[in-house]
Amino acid sequence: MVAISPTPHRAVVEHLVRQAVYQRLRKPLPKSGAAPNPLVVNVSARHCHLTPEAVEILFGKGHQLTVHKWLYQEGQFAAQETLTLIGPRSRVISNLRILGPCRTLNQVELAYTDGIALGFDLPLRISGNIKGTLGCMLMGPAGFFEMSEGVIRALRHVHMSPDDADYYGVKAGDEMRLKIGGPCGLSLDKMLVRTDKNFKLEVHIDTDEGNACNLQPDTLCEVLK
Amino acid sequence: MVAISPTPHRAVVEHLVRQAVYQRLRKPLPKSGAAPNPLVVNVSARHCHLTPEAVEILFGKGHQLTVHKWLYQEGQFAAQETLTLIGPRSRVISNLRILGPCRTLNQVELAYTDGIALGFDLPLRISGNIKGTLGCMLMGPAGFFEMSEGVIRALRHVHMSPDDADYYGVKAGDEMRLKIGGPCGLSLDKMLVRTDKNFKLEVHIDTDEGNACNLQPDTLCEVLK
Repeated sequence: MVAISPTPHRAVVEHLVRQAVYQRLRKPLPKSGAAPNPLVVNVSARHCHLTPEAVEILFGKGHQLTVHKWLYQEGQFAAQETLTLIGPRSRVISNLRILGPCRTLNQVELAYTDGIALGFDLPLRISGNIKGTLGCMLMGPAGFFEMSEGVIRALRHVHMSPDDADYYGVKAGDEMRLKIGGPCGLSLDKMLVRTDKNFKLEVHIDTDEGNACNLQPDTLCEVLK
Repeated sequence: MVAISPTPHRAVVEHLVRQAVYQRLRKPLPKSGAAPNPLVVNVSARHCHLTPEAVEILFGKGHQLTVHKWLYQEGQFAAQETLTLIGPRSRVISNLRILGPCRTLNQVELAYTDGIALGFDLPLRISGNIKGTLGCMLMGPAGFFEMSEGVIRALRHVHMSPDDADYYGVKAGDEMRLKIGGPCGLSLDKMLVRTDKNFKLEVHIDTDEGNACNLQPDTLCEVLK
């Protein structure tokens, strides 16, 4: 498995530079600089998570996902492998990226724009909560795999460590607001807080949300209670 | 020209019912009900505006746009005619709706999602301000028309009459905020105020913005200073 370590995210570099500059100037840090960790906001394009069994059916016996690009959360990656999704009205999405490593459930995360293109009424769900949702057919080079459920729009959410949760005064399951600046800025309500000691502070929004505000690497973002 | 008068927008019916119920109960109206006019929020899918000359080149000598559906603003309509747009990298958008009546300039309004699909870096502009923007090729049944400029993402905006502007305490050119409720609600900043004595109170957002919050006919919306 060959994979290049990613360049640090712009928000991480900015956070470190900000802290160093204020320290050198012996001035108190502004609120955003005083946070224990930089805020990274990433747009998740449509993708799927698969079980090892589904990977074998789609790509062949014994196949393992290969790393295309490491993601910001430790150990998570975009795989080189992609799939074709066939919706309930026989409409198709090609090049659906798989995210690794494998999970214990199969789940496809689409934007509402994708759902409209597929003629699919997507339910808004917390990732992992797929009970009672519609499924789809996946097509890989070695075969077809029918998902009986699991096609969702993922609820916007922020990953954070317990330290970050303490700093922002929130706990797992709380809702926060994400303020995004720029000439077509907006504030996203009801952003779910997810905590784990291994999580790096990162917001995941989808392409509809990212395009609504034209999120760029240098757009100012802020999480608020 | 045959066109059916549209059913009143849900927000209009709600506004009238709310006023009637509170009057019958002899109770003071809540803030939203006390506004002079109902707030209608509509999602503009990608579309274009054309000059009469462009319509003739694309659809044939003497051709006039025919009404497919009347829009909320008086006299505005979605035409039956659609076009094929060919972007600078030869990628295509089919069935691009034309809005009528004809204008004095040619303008294509796309969402950033469309821009990404076309490989197009869309500028964010106030409708009508297209100087220095990129163009595209349009293809109709009678011929091609090359737009030298005019492909934009339109800035989110609210149409209002001077009465509405007085009520909200704003004037043309001001920026307001649009709060949209629901399970993935958001607030859109920097919504431009446009006033005209013939305007009905209506917000126009694009499909990225509408899909980011899954705007439905019964989603609660509010304009704020």
